[in-house]
Amino acid sequence: MTIREASQHIRLGELSPVERVRSCLDRMDAVDDRIRAWVVVDREGALSAAKEAEAEIRAGRWRGPLHGIPLGIKDIVDVRGLPTRAGARLLADAPPADQDATVVSRLREAGGVILGKTVTTEFACFDPSDTRNPWNLAHTPGGSSSGSAAAVASGMCLGAIGSQTGGSISRPAAYCGVVGCKPTHGRVSAHGFVPVSFSLDHPGPFARSVADAALLLRAMAGYDPRDPVSAPEPVADYVAACAPGEGAPRIGMVGGLFLDRADEDVRRGLEKARQAFETCGATVTGARMPEAFGEVHRMHRILMCADLAAYHQAQFQDRKADYRPGIRGLIEEGLALSAVDGAGARWRQIRFKGAIQETLRGVDVLLTPAAPTPAPQDLTTTGDPVFNSPWSYAGLPTIVLPVALARNGLPVAVQLVGRAFREADLFRVAAWAEKAIGFNARPPEQPS
Amino acid sequence: MTIREASQHIRLGELSPVERVRSCLDRMDAVDDRIRAWVVVDREGALSAAKEAEAEIRAGRWRGPLHGIPLGIKDIVDVRGLPTRAGARLLADAPPADQDATVVSRLREAGGVILGKTVTTEFACFDPSDTRNPWNLAHTPGGSSSGSAAAVASGMCLGAIGSQTGGSISRPAAYCGVVGCKPTHGRVSAHGFVPVSFSLDHPGPFARSVADAALLLRAMAGYDPRDPVSAPEPVADYVAACAPGEGAPRIGMVGGLFLDRADEDVRRGLEKARQAFETCGATVTGARMPEAFGEVHRMHRILMCADLAAYHQAQFQDRKADYRPGIRGLIEEGLALSAVDGAGARWRQIRFKGAIQETLRGVDVLLTPAAPTPAPQDLTTTGDPVFNSPWSYAGLPTIVLPVALARNGLPVAVQLVGRAFREADLFRVAAWAEKAIGFNARPPEQPS
Repeated sequence: MTIREASQHIRLGELSPVERVRSCLDRMDAVDDRIRAWVVVDREGALSAAKEAEAEIRAGRWRGPLHGIPLGIKDIVDVRGLPTRAGARLLADAPPADQDATVVSRLREAGGVILGKTVTTEFACFDPSDTRNPWNLAHTPGGSSSGSAAAVASGMCLGAIGSQTGGSISRPAAYCGVVGCKPTHGRVSAHGFVPVSFSLDHPGPFARSVADAALLLRAMAGYDPRDPVSAPEPVADYVAACAPGEGAPRIGMVGGLFLDRADEDVRRGLEKARQAFETCGATVTGARMPEAFGEVHRMHRILMCADLAAYHQAQFQDRKADYRPGIRGLIEEGLALSAVDGAGARWRQIRFKGAIQETLRGVDVLLTPAAPTPAPQDLTTTGDPVFNSPWSYAGLPTIVLPVALARNGLPVAVQLVGRAFREADLFRVAAWAEKAIGFNARPPEQPS
Repeated sequence: MTIREASQHIRLGELSPVERVRSCLDRMDAVDDRIRAWVVVDREGALSAAKEAEAEIRAGRWRGPLHGIPLGIKDIVDVRGLPTRAGARLLADAPPADQDATVVSRLREAGGVILGKTVTTEFACFDPSDTRNPWNLAHTPGGSSSGSAAAVASGMCLGAIGSQTGGSISRPAAYCGVVGCKPTHGRVSAHGFVPVSFSLDHPGPFARSVADAALLLRAMAGYDPRDPVSAPEPVADYVAACAPGEGAPRIGMVGGLFLDRADEDVRRGLEKARQAFETCGATVTGARMPEAFGEVHRMHRILMCADLAAYHQAQFQDRKADYRPGIRGLIEEGLALSAVDGAGARWRQIRFKGAIQETLRGVDVLLTPAAPTPAPQDLTTTGDPVFNSPWSYAGLPTIVLPVALARNGLPVAVQLVGRAFREADLFRVAAWAEKAIGFNARPPEQPS
């Protein structure tokens, strides 16, 4: 069931938010001992919020399509009354947060019901969490927003919030066969988030359809004086943009790295998408990346490590041993960099943001595979963000959507890339693409 | 003579651009052996451009108020056919630039006549140049845009282009008794400039009146794909904003550092301005700076040194001895900084840009003195940018205008600070303030 479907029933009084929340809690009871998507579930708080929603809607005060909808929040994001542990030993004894992150309070204002906190890798970096892929428990769900993707994929909530610095929304969305949207850098406030890198962090939604992701983003988006990285750019109606419209899009397919590194399953998935798009009338042409693309991953890593090290520096000196090896390595890398390295990377990032506009000229979106492979059968990794971090670096909005099943039964996905602060245009194409692709497989009821 | 006055005569055919250029060249011949504002003067090129302008205007093709107006360009800015030496021994043998910087080509399109290149301190940093203050040759003109300020003050051109990283427009404008505008960071393209710091560099105009500065900025401003730091923000009509209008402004006077460090002459000048503003109906209240103001100068220096070191790094290793001591120290300081220092400074800059909006709430502009003292009687320094660099760090637009003469006969000035990308509002207040102040002293005809 999508948010849109649930909300239609809720609005008409055919479905109670309380029932809807109870179904999610039942689903957790049935599968989460194996999937392990949740850190903490606030059953009482969620049921009480659902009752309030029910009463409001009965009294004629329907807040909109998120009213009474159960949601999960990545555990680097503050939710009032719950601890923010960020998957970190260092925060194992964190006290309950005393206020909501801006996105959480915005989702609550829109009527959303917060079920609890979803599992993240430690401080949203690379060390894998315990979460499993709902399609096959031997496979990683991806990371760092592991729990949010897995919870949505397995029906334990209807939507969830994650965040991406490299590929932490796009990759788990792809691996778990759900829709993930990383909006433009600065589109969504990160106030109340534990940061990885203020230069690269992007909060964004997971959902089971493009329109649902649009609903969530519309509620989350917009300038927030408490996060000075957030941009005073107008927020369009992303939901309206998903309505069927005139004309098929112009799509620029990116080759190079994105084809060289993709495995056979992913290439087939991309080809299936291309054919479906062309059959439905899209123009698909080759897109040429800026020359500087070759240095993008190296520069992304410099920015990420420098910002991460700046945030953790003081604590790291005293408690280095309490960090897992992956993030420890990133912080050490950041501490060893010079300001000249950092200034060079930042300048190259600004130039790349300019140059990529040229690549987008004449097309509505860029198309790439969402990840080099389906979710690896390897729980010691969260997979490879190599196809996602260029767009985090460029700050451009992306939507990942599932397109086919690989030979091993796990989903493969494509990634659409839009223009900065033009998420409405991106949603228009993504909703069209979702229909053209017609993917509707779901993970097994009882994952194994 | 202001640009506005000259252009009215030029438009009506009462003044020939050729005559106007010849007057400037004559003035250079009379005083520049003492003032030393020019590195290179393109007499032939300027006269030929003036002739073209004259022919166009006679043929009825008047391009606007800059048509036929003689201008000076700071020698860190590329002017086609002239070398860009940036006051640096390292660039003593630079070949002629093969294209114009974006601002130069925009000024030419508007009809401006480029007289030549004005003196800058070495790479626009602190080591003083040979330029002297037209009010008194024993005093510094300020820096780094020393030649641009001195040339405008002494009538060797009607307007000039400079740039500011710390206080390199505001300070020389104040010391030389002319109007200097540092627009919002990103408002004017720096394509074709030798950079100091991409995080802090602001190109901007010098002129003899607020309206003239508006004319120059209107021609220079706007997004430029060749400078990815430039912002895609709409450009308003700054000239129209200078027309007398309704209502007196609300002015927030900043105390603290700006009063503590100001000498007696500067405080008297500020008080004169305050009284004039109140007499003309303005509301002057105290403005409270954000708490983080205390770290602003330190963070500004980190950003500046890191960016400067990143730009010079390769060359500095081989030719360290060819840099003057001041800039050598800044580069060495930048090379010694860590990426964590840089990331911390950048994050604090972003936060400060957010916090300063609160300070501006409820007022139209902030008011401070433009410099702690009048131009020091000391040719081994370019003076103190301590009152200017906070606004370079915050990226906010400023206009400096002279207000009174100090006891030693040199000018003192005030600095108005506006909102980001709201230069039209700032010009509106500055034009009003210029009239309220009524300052009209000029440097001596024959400086000594």
